[in-house]
Amino acid sequence: MYIAVMGYGTVGSGVVDLINQNQERIARNSMQMSMDIKYILDIRDFPDSPYRDLMIKDFNIILCDPEVKIVVETMGGITFAYEFVKKLLLAGKSVVTSNKELVAKHGVELLQIADSHNVNFLFEASVGGGIPIIRPITHCLTANRICEVAGILNGTTNYILTQMIDNNTDFDTALKQAQQLGYAEANPSADVDGFDACRKICILAALCFGQHVYPEQVPTNGIRDLTLTDVECAKSLGCVIKLIADAKLRPDGRIDINVAPALIKNHSQLASVNDVFNAILVRGDALGDVLFYGRGAGKMPTASAVVADVIDAARHQLRKLYFGWEEAQPGFVAPADEQILSLFIRGKACSDAAREAIRQNDALTILPEDSLPADQIAFVTSPMARSEIESILDAIPDFEKLTTLKMTDY
Amino acid sequence: MYIAVMGYGTVGSGVVDLINQNQERIARNSMQMSMDIKYILDIRDFPDSPYRDLMIKDFNIILCDPEVKIVVETMGGITFAYEFVKKLLLAGKSVVTSNKELVAKHGVELLQIADSHNVNFLFEASVGGGIPIIRPITHCLTANRICEVAGILNGTTNYILTQMIDNNTDFDTALKQAQQLGYAEANPSADVDGFDACRKICILAALCFGQHVYPEQVPTNGIRDLTLTDVECAKSLGCVIKLIADAKLRPDGRIDINVAPALIKNHSQLASVNDVFNAILVRGDALGDVLFYGRGAGKMPTASAVVADVIDAARHQLRKLYFGWEEAQPGFVAPADEQILSLFIRGKACSDAAREAIRQNDALTILPEDSLPADQIAFVTSPMARSEIESILDAIPDFEKLTTLKMTDY
Repeated sequence: MYIAVMGYGTVGSGVVDLINQNQERIARNSMQMSMDIKYILDIRDFPDSPYRDLMIKDFNIILCDPEVKIVVETMGGITFAYEFVKKLLLAGKSVVTSNKELVAKHGVELLQIADSHNVNFLFEASVGGGIPIIRPITHCLTANRICEVAGILNGTTNYILTQMIDNNTDFDTALKQAQQLGYAEANPSADVDGFDACRKICILAALCFGQHVYPEQVPTNGIRDLTLTDVECAKSLGCVIKLIADAKLRPDGRIDINVAPALIKNHSQLASVNDVFNAILVRGDALGDVLFYGRGAGKMPTASAVVADVIDAARHQLRKLYFGWEEAQPGFVAPADEQILSLFIRGKACSDAAREAIRQNDALTILPEDSLPADQIAFVTSPMARSEIESILDAIPDFEKLTTLKMTDY
Repeated sequence: MYIAVMGYGTVGSGVVDLINQNQERIARNSMQMSMDIKYILDIRDFPDSPYRDLMIKDFNIILCDPEVKIVVETMGGITFAYEFVKKLLLAGKSVVTSNKELVAKHGVELLQIADSHNVNFLFEASVGGGIPIIRPITHCLTANRICEVAGILNGTTNYILTQMIDNNTDFDTALKQAQQLGYAEANPSADVDGFDACRKICILAALCFGQHVYPEQVPTNGIRDLTLTDVECAKSLGCVIKLIADAKLRPDGRIDINVAPALIKNHSQLASVNDVFNAILVRGDALGDVLFYGRGAGKMPTASAVVADVIDAARHQLRKLYFGWEEAQPGFVAPADEQILSLFIRGKACSDAAREAIRQNDALTILPEDSLPADQIAFVTSPMARSEIESILDAIPDFEKLTTLKMTDY
């Protein structure tokens, strides 16, 4: 069977290496079909690559070659990826991608095209790198009503938070370390501001709840403003801080979805997910909590997930592997201010009046003040709508909010 | 589509409940096929059950009904389960089972029969209860060479060990608590002596390495002899004690496999698997470590895995879902005394000669003695063949071994 790889960057070159290194195992796992890479599409030149004879620059060669049945998209970005993938599916070729941005933005349309053309559009590598999560949700948890999906979906921020927690390193220094180690980009915004995690929770939410969620619908907060004081407050509550992406079914059938730094109890399985590792927790009505843990990024782990999809696509030609999802009903995502949650809030409260107002509110539980500067106060709210929390805060005189962390129950 | 359930015990009744409660979701997930339970086979009477009209006592009714395409086996035990399942597969019906004993003993034969009759023999629920593990190994990690699989596979022993570690409860008291809570049987041997974990690691090893491993080939030690002194020693090493079932590929192509109490570093993801929870770690060459965590037993979690298999069998009629495994090559399982490992050993060493012999051996690292009774000593060996460790111990005068724990690196 002939396949093509579009994009010879980190993941794409890992895919090519893995397929060539593991020919025998892959053949065994794909019903003795051999798996040959016929083309590698990249705009760059790789004159020293052992695969230079496979390199092409013209997408139409892949599109028009009837021998190519499966195409791997590891280019990243949206513009070309979307156009190419759409054309390939329309031409009756299965596509495997690691491109979370593409799936989060155009997943519903691409899945429908794949469906109507009897091919597969697979994206196990788009969430959690090498961790099996998409297929377990679509195949192993099908007897469950999934109530919630939550995860540590970004390795860069998790590395930074681990440094802050374990080594008392401040955010700026930890970010620089992450950049030196190659975990963070020169412009780290997609990671530290939560956008990467946001795309991934959109994909997980669509899979779990059957309706497409767009990144712009998800209230997204990153970890840029966290300080070591917050880390200390977390410790005093028996918690660690993690950047958590979460989607939860509400009693009214809508979902609460967000990306936010959150407090995780020390004994939680998510608390010991450190460094660049990822973990995804799925809560089902029959099953309770299951958790999937592993390397959420990196050349070979991600390539491992892509190649598993390629093998599955080869084994299931003309068979539908995933259940797609639909465009969302209007109002499916509850507005941010209607989200029901409990928050940890740290802020400046200089006046006695401020402290008194906080103390007298039964919905607020104040933390012991020994880990805080003298002019600050920290408290945890009871669970309520976000708008109610805002009203309470507005009514406190002379109060300046510094940090907000979501409380969790996993 | 008609299905039959054999065995209306805890798991079987959970399966019936789940299928009936979730008709709509299950139909959606099985391509709009409705899923109707036509028969429930049990030797007992259930006159008050809402399903009493479906109850039968004659297996041949199921065997001879051409409308029944998928049969769930949740009877447990071997004798009848083996005979019935074999006949059903030979008759062209797919079988879904939660019976680890059956799979560990007869898996290779039953998979081959299923294969030659173009039906599926599925057993996701036989390992890790509701945790998706069989399908991820067979479908998501296929691009990897798996080097090792290890897990906390028995909830009862993990509950007991958690009590010993967290609450300083001794083994006998913790076992009684487990019995009172329904986690342990009146005769707890299958759990506390490691036999249950042994069957499960046989299944995982066969899936990961492609050759059948029989329970009697696996050196199996339980947790009966562990004391709070061992728990203290573990703490002094920054570890907790867990009952670990492990299968590891050796450089010579054979496997080391065993079930044994082991020391797990506190920062390991396996260390925080507490109470009746299970976790399975899979180590792949491309992927590194992935871990799957959840409820390893219980009515609804296990039923959830069974019903997911039923849905998958319905979706894949006449399509092979698993890759089976072969009978093992002679010598595939390395003999116990050739296993390469590092051990923690605690024992009585009354004489100065004993202590001197231990101190002078460079392969042994002695623990600080403050957590030990005066007449005892504890040490950790370098990695070597088990027979070499035995030789070293034999050469120590006046030494009586009390506890052996396996060292781990995950």
